[in-house]
Formats: sequence, structure tokens, C-alpha cells
Amino acid sequence: MSESTIPAGTAAPSDLEIAQRATMRPIEEIAAAAGINAEALELYGRYKAKIDPARLAASKAGGVSRAPGKVVLVSAMSPTPAGEGKSTTTVGLADSLARAGHRVMIALREPSLGPILGMKGGATGGGYSQVLPMDEINLHFTGDFHAVTSANNALMALVDNHIYQGNELNIDPRRMTFKRVLDMNDRSLREVVIGLGGPTQGTPRQDGFDITVASEIMAVFCLATDLADLRERLGRITFGYTYDRQPVTVAQLGVQGALTMLLRDALKPNLVQTIAGTPALVHGGPFANIAHGCNSLIATQTARSLADIVVTEAGFGADLGAEKYMDIKSRVADVAPSAVVVVATIRALKMHGGVPKDQLREPNVDALAAGVVNLQRHVRNVEKFGITPVVAINRFATDTREELDWLLEWCAAAGVQAAVADVWGRGGGGDGGDELAAKVAAAVDAPHTFRHLYPLEMSVEDKIRTIVQEIYGADGVDFSVPALKRLAEIEKNGWSGFPVCMAKTQYSFTDDASRLGAPKGFTVHVRDLIPKTGAGFIVALTGAVMTMPGLPRVPAAMRMDVDAAGNPVGLF
Amino acid sequence: MSESTIPAGTAAPSDLEIAQRATMRPIEEIAAAAGINAEALELYGRYKAKIDPARLAASKAGGVSRAPGKVVLVSAMSPTPAGEGKSTTTVGLADSLARAGHRVMIALREPSLGPILGMKGGATGGGYSQVLPMDEINLHFTGDFHAVTSANNALMALVDNHIYQGNELNIDPRRMTFKRVLDMNDRSLREVVIGLGGPTQGTPRQDGFDITVASEIMAVFCLATDLADLRERLGRITFGYTYDRQPVTVAQLGVQGALTMLLRDALKPNLVQTIAGTPALVHGGPFANIAHGCNSLIATQTARSLADIVVTEAGFGADLGAEKYMDIKSRVADVAPSAVVVVATIRALKMHGGVPKDQLREPNVDALAAGVVNLQRHVRNVEKFGITPVVAINRFATDTREELDWLLEWCAAAGVQAAVADVWGRGGGGDGGDELAAKVAAAVDAPHTFRHLYPLEMSVEDKIRTIVQEIYGADGVDFSVPALKRLAEIEKNGWSGFPVCMAKTQYSFTDDASRLGAPKGFTVHVRDLIPKTGAGFIVALTGAVMTMPGLPRVPAAMRMDVDAAGNPVGLF
Repeated sequence: MSESTIPAGTAAPSDLEIAQRATMRPIEEIAAAAGINAEALELYGRYKAKIDPARLAASKAGGVSRAPGKVVLVSAMSPTPAGEGKSTTTVGLADSLARAGHRVMIALREPSLGPILGMKGGATGGGYSQVLPMDEINLHFTGDFHAVTSANNALMALVDNHIYQGNELNIDPRRMTFKRVLDMNDRSLREVVIGLGGPTQGTPRQDGFDITVASEIMAVFCLATDLADLRERLGRITFGYTYDRQPVTVAQLGVQGALTMLLRDALKPNLVQTIAGTPALVHGGPFANIAHGCNSLIATQTARSLADIVVTEAGFGADLGAEKYMDIKSRVADVAPSAVVVVATIRALKMHGGVPKDQLREPNVDALAAGVVNLQRHVRNVEKFGITPVVAINRFATDTREELDWLLEWCAAAGVQAAVADVWGRGGGGDGGDELAAKVAAAVDAPHTFRHLYPLEMSVEDKIRTIVQEIYGADGVDFSVPALKRLAEIEKNGWSGFPVCMAKTQYSFTDDASRLGAPKGFTVHVRDLIPKTGAGFIVALTGAVMTMPGLPRVPAAMRMDVDAAGNPVGLF
Repeated sequence: MSESTIPAGTAAPSDLEIAQRATMRPIEEIAAAAGINAEALELYGRYKAKIDPARLAASKAGGVSRAPGKVVLVSAMSPTPAGEGKSTTTVGLADSLARAGHRVMIALREPSLGPILGMKGGATGGGYSQVLPMDEINLHFTGDFHAVTSANNALMALVDNHIYQGNELNIDPRRMTFKRVLDMNDRSLREVVIGLGGPTQGTPRQDGFDITVASEIMAVFCLATDLADLRERLGRITFGYTYDRQPVTVAQLGVQGALTMLLRDALKPNLVQTIAGTPALVHGGPFANIAHGCNSLIATQTARSLADIVVTEAGFGADLGAEKYMDIKSRVADVAPSAVVVVATIRALKMHGGVPKDQLREPNVDALAAGVVNLQRHVRNVEKFGITPVVAINRFATDTREELDWLLEWCAAAGVQAAVADVWGRGGGGDGGDELAAKVAAAVDAPHTFRHLYPLEMSVEDKIRTIVQEIYGADGVDFSVPALKRLAEIEKNGWSGFPVCMAKTQYSFTDDASRLGAPKGFTVHVRDLIPKTGAGFIVALTGAVMTMPGLPRVPAAMRMDVDAAGNPVGLF
């Protein structure tokens, strides 16, 4: 992401260099300014802290009650493979809102270590709109993902041990639906056979590893309202089926208590700061395809208890991340956004207008006009939830004035609020996001009535049909034979009341990543359904979903090192 | 361990209950009292902190120079399966030394999560001689083991990716000597096949997982003198061989920088406190069989820079842990002990005297007299290193006065310093360890000349022969055919100058766990040798060594949970 946003022709500093040059305030100061009492704060080094939500609530119990803060959800048009800068816009917008005098807090996902060692930029923003200390956040942070990995793998060690020790629950080793995980990009672990070596070495079975962010425990962690709810949800996880095809849950195995114990400290949100000093809670990080793709509910609610405006982000484009935020997360608790920011870039619009990847830097207003249909559909989709969208045009050095003006005029003609933001280059702490902040603040206060897209009583088929027709613009949905069998199973097991979590490519409204713009006359193919009974949603798989990434030919790890003082180098 | 030490017939509190009732002081106060400046301290919650050795050294640069503290190494006779209480004695002894006015610090290994979820007690001591917060130390702590797991698995993902992307280094996938790890007891992962699923899923090969404490990266971590040395050692790790049988190192792959970056924060020692308020560094934890089994060298040296006496522990009995401390760790840096405490128990002596397990609680002076030969050999072994041993009789409720007196008299007649210690029941903060502390303090100040058992120039065969004859009392050593081949390989690759790390059962001086007491007329069988070129030692395997434990029929995890306030229950 950052690579493309570096002004052409200049030796711009890297994100890591900008971050290392920034001056951080001690996290106690950030906490005090945010209204967090010392009793609720657990320091992790000088610039990170965990917040104990129970102690925070206790400290407020005697005080003046205030309304929870309003949520601004940052989403995007269908992105280019390099991403359109949602995290950067989230950070920059929050900094700009703070600059304008609002009491603001950020809620973001934690980065996953696996992709960092591979090729992806971190999830900590970029340029002058970053959360700090970016190196520590991107490397281990406060250990939350390691705790999720431990809990996930403890569960699977306990399950395989149960089978090995006599299998009282009659678990069918051929019908396991839960895998071990590592926070690593490790394609060699996608398909494995375990339990080899003879009778003392377990029971042989086909298996595989996912990346930690794909664990249902991560999704559960991010949807739990508190520790007791986490324990309940962990107990409801279905990890496989018996020989007579009955689902088997963690509660039947009896280890939800141990898993909760392993996640106890991790469940406390992590406080950090932006380059401009805005407080940010960075906590949790479920996949945006087979899960709902946003930070923990506890972080969102903690931020709302402290700030008037909470700026948060959902993964992928608005067809996926925003829809899931509305129909999954906003059903667990009343966290519906008061405004949705749709991040758009000139280069993404040109890509949707048919321009090949290597020509995206060249001015091309015609392509812009052809590609704007993609943005248009996302904007209209947001309105279907009763929320006012605001288009944030994330400025790149290669954008021309003519292109930017054309897009602003198109937005005005379409009756859509829009602003150009240069939060990467100038930072939200500078004036890069002032206009965007003003429009977002106005949208937050504008009257609106949030509505879910579908009622939970609707059948799973109809929920999926509603999403693909209303949000994607498809004619309909087509279920594979396995998917139809799974629908019957879901009905039989009493799981029809769950919302749906669509696993679809982020690059297209269709299930074919190459179909850009705003396609019409297509059908979405659901090839399988995965009930996530702990998280409380049914994943609908369209096309292949990679739940364990691989490393590229030259992994980013090859460039990473520490300098003589022990500081990381080569990290973005 | 603690189970057996609970006084018979009373409802004694569990270790966790004792720990939870204890009052901790804020870790800043413990640090200040220990002479650690605030700049060197990185808090992890209220009662844990990491110490930055570089900042600590910088803060002392201008001050009065003092001699590094003296080391007291706590070891033991050949233990019973329940253990003889080395950690408890370490903590209690340090508390008693502090009570006597010495400036003292503890250096201990970190507990491994896998065995905790299985059946083993923690490594945080027991009764009234514990380090706190025991629940946090036993669960994730400051994330060091997770960092080691990440670094280890990043290496293997990078190795398998290298093979998949063209295998420029010509690595033979059938000759890999490094495995992935999890900090979990998971027998199903001992033998696996990875890379299945077709050409985009890696290269199929036979593989397996070890537990994290068995990772060579853990051994490297614990022997590194600083971050730069860590990086060097990581680069020297041999992870496999080429098709033409040449060793391949991490430096050849070029990822020692990335691995160092992943371990940077973990390498800072962790400060906690005992129930009595004595400062303790709990850091690192390599296996005691295929590695050297003691806490990080950095923690030992940091403690020595702060205290006059550092009480530390080495895994297993003195034939293994103490010998490795002398011949491996004490060669990397000058950390040779000034005194060695040999922990003995009445029940272990009776076991070595031939009493069956279920009768160990019954008084039996005759068995004691028969079993004391085991203790005798350990004590004489310690003297071979030029160090004065002190026998600590770790008292159990079932010990009779007659038995204790008999053992004290035997020690006196043998010219060995000895004291009965009741640090579990009364705590070193009480008077439970006063006599032991006095004798240890005297031994520390007594004149002594430390010597290694063998010179590094000796051949690997002769090093092994020296250990088994001098320390175990064997007639000689017998090498298997594969071991002989490996010896030639070690010679060829220039690794003969490394010290030897014996992997042998802890229960016997022989390689047969059932041969108790002080056997004579036996041969030790070396079945294979594993060069650990990063750690810098050659592991000699005698018999089978389990590097990935399994869970028992009813894992400890089944009892674990959190209470309504979020505190752990059922953790020991």
C-alpha cells in the first residue's frame, strides 16, 4: 500500500522511518487524556497498555452518565490488490476530528504476523497517519494473537487426545471441522496428515493448519461482549461431528473454562496512540472473508464509553466489511454506525474503468467516468442500511487536479458528500483531513435510522439471496449440491437463525475477481456453507478461500533485521 | 510436586490459593530496591516487568563498579517422578538469604504452557516459596515462549518456501534436522506428513513438531550473551543438509536478521517477586535433556550485576543439570557457581534404597541407608568441579525426626555440609531456610577453584566417555552404528570443539530409568548424536527422548476455568 503512495520522484521516508522519527507521549498521558483511570490501565512497556473494561466501568459507576459515542465506520469501494488506504484514512480522519475539537477514539484490528513476514504492509496505517509504536504493534504486540493461537491449539490437542484416550464422545476423525492454527504464512501446512508413527502417537487423520486470524476463536474473541460471554461462545463452538453425524461442541468436551483462562488477559483492549497523539484501541483481527473482519466488540464498546466519536474500520470493500458490520456485529450489540466513510482512489476507479495495472498512474478521466459505477453501487448500498455515506478520496501523488475535480463533481451531482483527503502525506494531525472530518462530523449528526438488511427469521437461503441481490447486484444465487446438503443440515441442527457471513472475493461484486466495475446479470455461486456456532454465523463460501496464505518468492523477512541499538529495520 | 508436600490429614491450601492470598508489591518498588533504574524497566501489568540490559548497563556506567554477584546453583539427587522441589528450594533459599541480610536475586526458567495444560506442576516453586504472580507466569507470562515459537516456525516456513520456490540451496527435504514447534502437549503432531494437496501446496515431506522448549532457538536464546550474539548464533543453526550432504545454516538462507527481530523484546529478562518480596528474574527455559536446562545467560548476568548472591537452578539431577551448567553455560561466560546445593528428600533416598512408590511415606531408616549412595555420588561429582556442595534436605510432612537425624549424621560423617529446609511449609521468608542459608553463605565464601570436567580440545567420543565415567560411574560408553557415522560427520564438519549435551534419563545414573541408587559395572549406550551448531553443543542421545509430550487421560485443562471476577481457578 505505502509503496504506491510515495510521491513520485522523491526519496520519501518509509512508514517505519516516519514512525521511528515520531515522538510518542507516555501511554499513561494518552490514557489520562482519554479519561481512563490508572486502576484500569495495565502497562506493556512505555507506549502500550491494556485496559481492563471491568475496572474502567467500575471507575465510571459513580460519575455522570453520558451517552455512548457515535460510530464512524470506514469502508471502501472494491479495492485494487494494493488496497486503497482504509487504515490510513481511519487514522487520519480520527486525527482530523480530534484537531477539530471532537473527543475521538480509534478502534482498529491488530496486524497478523504471518503476512508481515510475507509481503503485506501492516495494518497500522501509513505515512503521517499511523498508530504507534508501529514496530511493536506489528511484532507480537501484547500477545493477543499468540493467546488465540494457544487456545485454538489447546482445543485441538485436547480433541485429538480425547479420541486417542478412548473417544467417549464418538467423534469421527474424518469429520473434523476445526483445524490447528499458526500466525504464519506457511503453505506446507495447508494439507497434512497427523497422528502417524504407531499406536502411541495418536490417531492418524487428514488435517491442515489455518492462519490464526482464520480461527473461529478469533471471531468469537471479537464478538464476545465480556469474559462470561466469551466462555459461553467458546462452549458453543462445533469442532466436528460424531460417527452418527451429530455436531460435537467444546462444551461437550468440557474445556471452555481452560480456553477462557488462556484468553483472559488478551480480551482486554490495547491502547496506543497515533502520530498526532489520538488514542487508539487496537484489538482483535478476524479474517474478512470467513469471518466478519473488524476489531473486537469490546474495543468498540470501550472506545464508545470514552469518546464522542469512534472511528473504526471493516475489512475489504463495503459489499463485504460494511455489510458484515451491519448484519453480524451490529446484532450482537447496538454498535451501528452513524456514518459510513467509503474510501475511493483515482487509481481504483480507473482500474474499474478498464485501465491495466501498469497504466494506473497515467491521467485518464474517461476511465474514471467508466469506473465510477463501482463506487456508485457501494454508496447506494450504504444508504440501504439507512446510513449516510461520505466518500473519502484518498489522494495519491499521481492524481491530477482534473481527475480529482471530476470525481468531486460526480459526487456532488449524485448527491453524495465527498472530500479529498491527503492524510498519508500531510497527516490528519496536519490539515490533510480537515474537510473530510467536517463532512463526516455533519453526517454523524444528520438524522438517520439504521436498519439491518434482513431479519434473522429469514431462511439461510433467503438471507444469502437478499445479500447477493441487494448488495452485489446479482440476479440470484446458485447453490452447489454440497451446499444444498449443508443447508438441510443447518436447518436440522437448528442453526437457521444465525446471520450469514459471505466469503467472496473483495475485488468484484461478483464471485469472479476479474469482473470489475458494477456488473449486472450475474449469479453468485455458493459452493459450501460452514456453520460457526460459537461466533454465531453461517459462512457462505463462493469460490476458493485461502485460509492459510503462502510466502512469496522473496519474502519480506529477507529484508528484516535489527540495527546495533536493537531497533527493527526493513519492517515496511 | 506440591501434592506430595501437603501435610497429611490437613486441608492445605493449593499453591494457587497461597499465591492468590499473597500481597504483592508494585514491581517498580521491587525494581527500585534491586537497584534497577526506571529507564531500564518496561512494565507488563502491575507485577511483571522486562529489564533492558543495555539501559541497565548504561545507567551503571557512571557509578561505582562492583564485582559481579556470586552464583549458587541449586541441583538435586536423582529425583522421584514427582520431583524433589528444586524450584521451591531455590525460592526459599533466596528468601532466607535475603532475610539474613544478603543482597540476593533469583534466576529461574519460565514455565512451559504445554505441560501445565497436561499434568505437571508449574516451575514457580510451591507452598510459601513461590514466585508471583504465579498464574500469569504460568500462562503466557510476557510472551517470550510465543516469540520463540514464532521465530522457530518462521524459520521453517521460510525453509519450506525456499524449497518450493526453486530450492537454490539444494536442500534435501529428506534430511531436515529442524522441526516446527508448539508450546503444547500434542502427541498427534509428533509424526506428520506436510506439503500435501498438489503442486501449489508446497513439497510433501515427512516431518514432526516438537514442544517449544525443545527448539534449538530456545537453547540459543538462553546462551546468547546479547542481541548481536543471538543473531550470530541464530545464523549458525544447521536446519538440514543438501542433497550432497553439506550442512545448511540459517545464515545461508539469510533470515537470521528477521528471526532476531522476532526475539528482540523477548530477550530482555523478566522481573517478578517471591511471596517474601525477593526479586526474581524468570527468563528462558530450554529442555534439560536435548538442551542445557537453565534460564537465560542474560538473566543470570543481569542478576549478577545487581545482587551479591544469585540463586539459580538447573534441570534434572546434578548428573545432568549441574554438569551442563559447568561444561556448557559456564564456558559461554564466566558464570561458574561458588556453591552447589544438592536437594535431597527422605522419600527419594528411600526410593533409591529399594522402597516401592506406595510405601515411600512409611518410616524406613534402613532403606535410607541403602539409598544414600545416590546422594553420595552426586555430592562427590560436584566436588570434581572444584565446588563445595551443600545438601538441602527438603522436608516433607511424612519425614520422621529419626530419618532426618540419620541423614544429617550421615552427611556430617561424610564431611558434607547439610541442613533441613522447610521452605514449602514455612517459606524462606519465615525461618524455614535459615540454617540452609547460613551454610550456603559460608560455602560461597569458602575458597574454591572451579574447573571444567573436560577440555574442549578433547574428541567428542572422549568428552562423552569422560562424562559417563567421571559423573555417571559407568565403565564406558558404547556407540551405535548411526552414532559412529554421526561422529565422523561431526569431525568432517569441524564441530568437534563443541561441548557435549547429554540426553539421558534423569531417574538413574545409567541410561535405564529403573536402575536406582548408584549402579556400577554398566555401559552407557549412545544411539545418536545431534549437532546443535547455533547453541554450540553436540547432543548425545541415550535411549528415547520425547521432544513432544502427550496429554494424560484426564488433562489438567479439564479442571481449569475463570471465576466471575476473571481470576483463574484449577491452575495447580
